[in-house]
Amino acid sequence: MSKFWSKRTHELDPYTPGEQPQNQQYIKLNTNENPYPPSPKAIDAMRAAADEDMRLYPDPMAKSLKQAVADFYDLDVSEVFVGNSSDEVLAHTFVALLKKDKPLFFPDISYGFYPAYCGLFNIETTRIPLADDFTINPQDYAADNGGIIFPNPNAPSGIALSLADIEKILMANQDVVVVIDEAYIDFGGETAVPLINKYPNLLITQTFSKSRSLAGLRVGFAMGQADLINGLERVKNSFNSYPLDRAAIAGATASIKDKVYFDETCQKIINTRDKVSKALEQMDFSVLPSQANFVFAKPNKADAEKLYLDLKAAGVLVRYFNSPRIAGYLRITIGTDADMDVFLEKLAMLT
Amino acid sequence: MSKFWSKRTHELDPYTPGEQPQNQQYIKLNTNENPYPPSPKAIDAMRAAADEDMRLYPDPMAKSLKQAVADFYDLDVSEVFVGNSSDEVLAHTFVALLKKDKPLFFPDISYGFYPAYCGLFNIETTRIPLADDFTINPQDYAADNGGIIFPNPNAPSGIALSLADIEKILMANQDVVVVIDEAYIDFGGETAVPLINKYPNLLITQTFSKSRSLAGLRVGFAMGQADLINGLERVKNSFNSYPLDRAAIAGATASIKDKVYFDETCQKIINTRDKVSKALEQMDFSVLPSQANFVFAKPNKADAEKLYLDLKAAGVLVRYFNSPRIAGYLRITIGTDADMDVFLEKLAMLT
Repeated sequence: MSKFWSKRTHELDPYTPGEQPQNQQYIKLNTNENPYPPSPKAIDAMRAAADEDMRLYPDPMAKSLKQAVADFYDLDVSEVFVGNSSDEVLAHTFVALLKKDKPLFFPDISYGFYPAYCGLFNIETTRIPLADDFTINPQDYAADNGGIIFPNPNAPSGIALSLADIEKILMANQDVVVVIDEAYIDFGGETAVPLINKYPNLLITQTFSKSRSLAGLRVGFAMGQADLINGLERVKNSFNSYPLDRAAIAGATASIKDKVYFDETCQKIINTRDKVSKALEQMDFSVLPSQANFVFAKPNKADAEKLYLDLKAAGVLVRYFNSPRIAGYLRITIGTDADMDVFLEKLAMLT
Repeated sequence: MSKFWSKRTHELDPYTPGEQPQNQQYIKLNTNENPYPPSPKAIDAMRAAADEDMRLYPDPMAKSLKQAVADFYDLDVSEVFVGNSSDEVLAHTFVALLKKDKPLFFPDISYGFYPAYCGLFNIETTRIPLADDFTINPQDYAADNGGIIFPNPNAPSGIALSLADIEKILMANQDVVVVIDEAYIDFGGETAVPLINKYPNLLITQTFSKSRSLAGLRVGFAMGQADLINGLERVKNSFNSYPLDRAAIAGATASIKDKVYFDETCQKIINTRDKVSKALEQMDFSVLPSQANFVFAKPNKADAEKLYLDLKAAGVLVRYFNSPRIAGYLRITIGTDADMDVFLEKLAMLT
């Protein structure tokens, strides 16, 4: 409490990111980082950008990066927005497109940052319960609302929604913006990008942090018809003209151009995930069907929080959410095969 | 206009940054960039950070950078906030500390981003006219308000306020936050950092973009008592947990540790500025007394806008503001001696 803080600041319930220990070695399976390094071309591009030209402002529009994203997805450059991580892109999205007179709908179990944005920007919300099997039922979103957002695949469940179901939601909500947060789409889900031309109310956000192994570079983007992108640009230009630094623009641009490396890396993670899911089931875990780079799994005969703490003590960090409905689960990021072998070995000793 | 935009988004009047031509060579004296490269140690640190660890999230608290800033200014690490440029730091400051029930005071001629933040965050404002000589009169700020912000030195005038005058403002406004935006402080002004321990209502913002030649890296910071910093952290953690990428944290940390290089660079710019100011006066310009890395100068016998356009056509970019009171002026960033010789030569041909 402080007399100097704004009223809003007192009321905030900030997001708590997963632990990021800086000084100790863990097998780090807690924040959905990619176990493989970024594309070597991205590393080269970042190093090349770290030169004397750092004295100059970057391109405020980051046109080269927008063009590379547009090329990757066969969009026009006017249909792409970029920002300092998909968290910043989402923040601007909440202000520009989701702050309306009616409540914003999102699943009760979902990315924990959404309520933090709503607190910061004073957006009324309605949390729509997932079904018992943690799936999204499109019919639940066919009610009066000021906008809709959900991750696909959802977090922390890892469960993906089909494009057919997404179209049902888009069609039932043509006067509000439906945001699909595709942070984890590249690990087996089907992107909604091909629906952009058909639905002016569709905005898709993605990130370089997961499938492109650049969590340390902080680059995210949004895709939608130019009308939605223009709204985001207006907010961005009232907040920070130059959100992406020179290394970030260069590294992300090189990364998205290296499709071969990207495809290989994603496939390795998918293969490992499917192996780990089976192994966990054999160890008496209930494992939700994941299309993400993590699995959400419930030890049927152990306490999840205790297991999280025991794993941490054994040098393996996973994520535990002390929240209703999911307090019995662990979210386990997919690492390398070697990482996961150690994880499974420690787990076997602890259960 | 769009049915999908929020009401606020329609009402925004976004900030327009100075031109950043990407494809053409100009002598670029329009956005107050430093003509000298960043510290070689900063370049080395950025390159070293651009490695395989980019797959991992950065430290969300950027502790190493906060500690380096604290060391430089003899503060506690709890008295330092860092962000993705001082523009982002300012944006969070407006939300956390300046959004009150009473109007925010700032000078009528000042950094053009302040009104953009107020539009975005719905903050009522009162613009306090500068004196005829473009100085700030502390007594003008001794009235009921919800907070105060001004740059010191002011922009685009370049005129610095003394610490004695700043203390008058701080003392007359003990229940609200007074933000001193010290983007240009290192070119001859006197920082208010030594006042932090005495005034719980003082927040100071600074940037790595000007005196530390890192406009391309997007790093800014704020300093104040821990109570104010905690308010900023609450807002930051409701917006983006990891605003600074690994290269930004590493580069800025190395930069602020290289005091020798920093002092030399600032002194060179000060020397050039004083020479250019004299030369402009000899060419019949009225030049405001600048403590910044730019001069604000009025051609007594020429039209400023025409001169801006003619200089641009001649390959020299300066900044022209088509705004009341200052439409007769040009803001000219201080480049190298060689840059300024060309500028003065072109100017002589055009006037």
